[in-house]
Amino acid sequence: MAVQKPTIPKGTRDFGPAEVQKRKYILGQIQKVFEKYGFMPIETPTMENLSTLEGKYGEEGDKLLFRVLNSGDAFKEIKDKNGDEKISNFEFRISNFSEKGLRYDLTVPFARYVVMNKNEIAFPFKRYQMQPVWRADRPQKGRYREFWQCDADVVGSDSLLNEVDLIQIYDEAFRNLGIEKYELRVNNRKVLAGIAEVVKSIDLMSTIAIGIDKLDKVGEEGVRTELSEQGFSKDELDKLFDIITIKGENETILNQLQTKLQTSTEGTKGIEELVFVLKALNQSTNQPINIKLDFSLARGLSYYTGCIFEVASTEGTLKSSIGGGGRYDNLTGIFGLPNVSGVGISFGLDRIYDVMEELNKFPQGLNATSTKVMICAFEEETQLQALAILKQLRDTQIASELYPELPQSKKEKENPLQKPMNYADALKIPFRLIIKNDSMILKDIDGKVVPVTTINEIINHIK
Amino acid sequence: MAVQKPTIPKGTRDFGPAEVQKRKYILGQIQKVFEKYGFMPIETPTMENLSTLEGKYGEEGDKLLFRVLNSGDAFKEIKDKNGDEKISNFEFRISNFSEKGLRYDLTVPFARYVVMNKNEIAFPFKRYQMQPVWRADRPQKGRYREFWQCDADVVGSDSLLNEVDLIQIYDEAFRNLGIEKYELRVNNRKVLAGIAEVVKSIDLMSTIAIGIDKLDKVGEEGVRTELSEQGFSKDELDKLFDIITIKGENETILNQLQTKLQTSTEGTKGIEELVFVLKALNQSTNQPINIKLDFSLARGLSYYTGCIFEVASTEGTLKSSIGGGGRYDNLTGIFGLPNVSGVGISFGLDRIYDVMEELNKFPQGLNATSTKVMICAFEEETQLQALAILKQLRDTQIASELYPELPQSKKEKENPLQKPMNYADALKIPFRLIIKNDSMILKDIDGKVVPVTTINEIINHIK
Repeated sequence: MAVQKPTIPKGTRDFGPAEVQKRKYILGQIQKVFEKYGFMPIETPTMENLSTLEGKYGEEGDKLLFRVLNSGDAFKEIKDKNGDEKISNFEFRISNFSEKGLRYDLTVPFARYVVMNKNEIAFPFKRYQMQPVWRADRPQKGRYREFWQCDADVVGSDSLLNEVDLIQIYDEAFRNLGIEKYELRVNNRKVLAGIAEVVKSIDLMSTIAIGIDKLDKVGEEGVRTELSEQGFSKDELDKLFDIITIKGENETILNQLQTKLQTSTEGTKGIEELVFVLKALNQSTNQPINIKLDFSLARGLSYYTGCIFEVASTEGTLKSSIGGGGRYDNLTGIFGLPNVSGVGISFGLDRIYDVMEELNKFPQGLNATSTKVMICAFEEETQLQALAILKQLRDTQIASELYPELPQSKKEKENPLQKPMNYADALKIPFRLIIKNDSMILKDIDGKVVPVTTINEIINHIK
Repeated sequence: MAVQKPTIPKGTRDFGPAEVQKRKYILGQIQKVFEKYGFMPIETPTMENLSTLEGKYGEEGDKLLFRVLNSGDAFKEIKDKNGDEKISNFEFRISNFSEKGLRYDLTVPFARYVVMNKNEIAFPFKRYQMQPVWRADRPQKGRYREFWQCDADVVGSDSLLNEVDLIQIYDEAFRNLGIEKYELRVNNRKVLAGIAEVVKSIDLMSTIAIGIDKLDKVGEEGVRTELSEQGFSKDELDKLFDIITIKGENETILNQLQTKLQTSTEGTKGIEELVFVLKALNQSTNQPINIKLDFSLARGLSYYTGCIFEVASTEGTLKSSIGGGGRYDNLTGIFGLPNVSGVGISFGLDRIYDVMEELNKFPQGLNATSTKVMICAFEEETQLQALAILKQLRDTQIASELYPELPQSKKEKENPLQKPMNYADALKIPFRLIIKNDSMILKDIDGKVVPVTTINEIINHIK
């Protein structure tokens, strides 16, 4: 076989031991909080039928789906009985060659799962899901084609206490991860509808949402230009910015908003929801959560209908979203189960990783290897004796290994410790047990001899 | 949008909370053993370039690869500037539309990883990897198109102590999982080569291996028929079956084999390797491991060169392999890094799951939800008060939740406990804390009142 120089697909990554340990640490912390709050895990297949995926993420999303070729001879339909191509009447539609796609997010598969298993599920159903998703986006810094989401959703309950739970999950998980300086921006789609109603017409909620969603990127002038092209007058836009730029404490700005939106039933409902959520959070704990009401927060996805959330770190250079979510009133409807309200949040593993890496938030003890002791013996007979010691260490749950190689070359035989110690140093193994003739010497990572002689002393010292 | 009745692709599965918890339990147990033995985790992308995958799994494997369509307009090359199809000169080769495929196993991506990262790796490299793989096989009982493998491999060490470690990993992991009645069959490819040499010619090792690999399925007569079609005489086949059916204690059959293969250098080397591995295992512990030397064990994959392993449960009805592996001397060679020996084992998560399910080996306490207490309050005001209690419980690391709904209908108001208790029963939540006016009542899963009154008493009782 010809030798190939191997590569991996654009936008995908290998994760080495140190990275996997860090990623597992993040996943483990988030999972612990999810479970503490009563959420249960589910997992859905990597491949979904295209009928499940298509049309759920907008036109842009459909373009970014990874499609899987039908197995067997995917092109057999365009060949006639003799194997010749009969291409004259054939339509080159992807649907002729592909019926499956890779999971694009965790929300649509979850909605599908709920519909398919509705008779077995005890509602309200609180599920979490931590799995990779794939998008054929142009890769760039912080954007990958394969990345992980960690979602928690509740379906089958209208209660705003679910929003309260989810906000507390964000707070607890980010604190546990050491990301204490973060900002949780909160808005409500009903407030946005109220703003649209007061500014011009409630039917223009989406237009306004899409417009102000770009505020971070294009600034107020950019949004004004875009919305005026959509038929908004200067007066209307002044009114819009007057509302979405209200500044102050949460309570103050809610009071101001209440006055401005008093003519809108929908807007007033949205404000009431926000008031309730803040009140419930205060009842829950006197440890305040850094919530920032932001009436310019829109979030792209069209299915949100109530509270919406977005989290970003306020420390370091990485300001992009590390989490987001909201309430959606009818996601399962597209699969035939109407009137099931849901609310959920998502953690972006890869961005959280990047933030923690930049801010040096990973715990010190997190090592690529779990090995605490490496045993080193230089002769076959001594190695065989060492096996019993190795077993004893492992039986006390001390992760250990025996350096398997024996010195081969003359140089190695003269300095038999060099290769094993280089290995132990590279892996940052904290203890090294050298067995020679009938003696054992325990050294720490700095090469200092630990004065212990029996195997029990060694075990006690390491523990 | 039209309502669709959702489905998932053939051969794939959703995993509900109870299943995920059980799968995580298995993965956790295996991971613990891997790490205790000094193995480090890596993860590779779901998609690999087809150039990495193709030609590595034989012709059959190439057919079973899931191929991913190129993103963007995969068919643009067959359209001219006006978007019309210019099909006359176009070859309908999959390679024109697809450059990526889904991970088919964990060994080839690992070999690719080692080659791409050889300068950063400290050898011997002991890595484990637990990820799903995909094969477009015909789905049947116990065979899925998406399934998980858990692999541990050592590359860069010839030492047979690695084989010893891997055998002990199998033993410890299966014991920890409660699969104590299992059989670990061991053979050596060099022994198979020696058998080929003694029976007819060392060059026919593969032919013999492929033949006897089917012994379980087609029986001795079937294998005899197939091999006689390949040119083996009755005398040669008698000689072959005389060797591979040697019965007895491991030591006895090794002695017999030694005599029978004494004219083969390769065979003698293979026997020495097996003798060393058994001796080292004895040195390590006096707790015997159920190893069954089986000279008819061949294992399909062509890349093995030394010891080979296969594990099956000996209890219950599921006798198919739940693990397997072996030594390969040149797997990284295909990617340009020759002379790196490796040895590895694999655990099949899905089959282990099926065995444990049949034998009822999952621990009793493994519940779909982690929730220990569900709080129940029937009025908005009481719910808000309950939030502080909920927070106190969670602060002591007791997984808890507040039933979020309030009684709505007249019937619900008359019996406000019914819906919450149905929910708690369905989820098998062990404790339920009912808050009403200023009193709290703690009930266990059987409805029995626990005589505690303060929140601290409640916490202590639950802990």
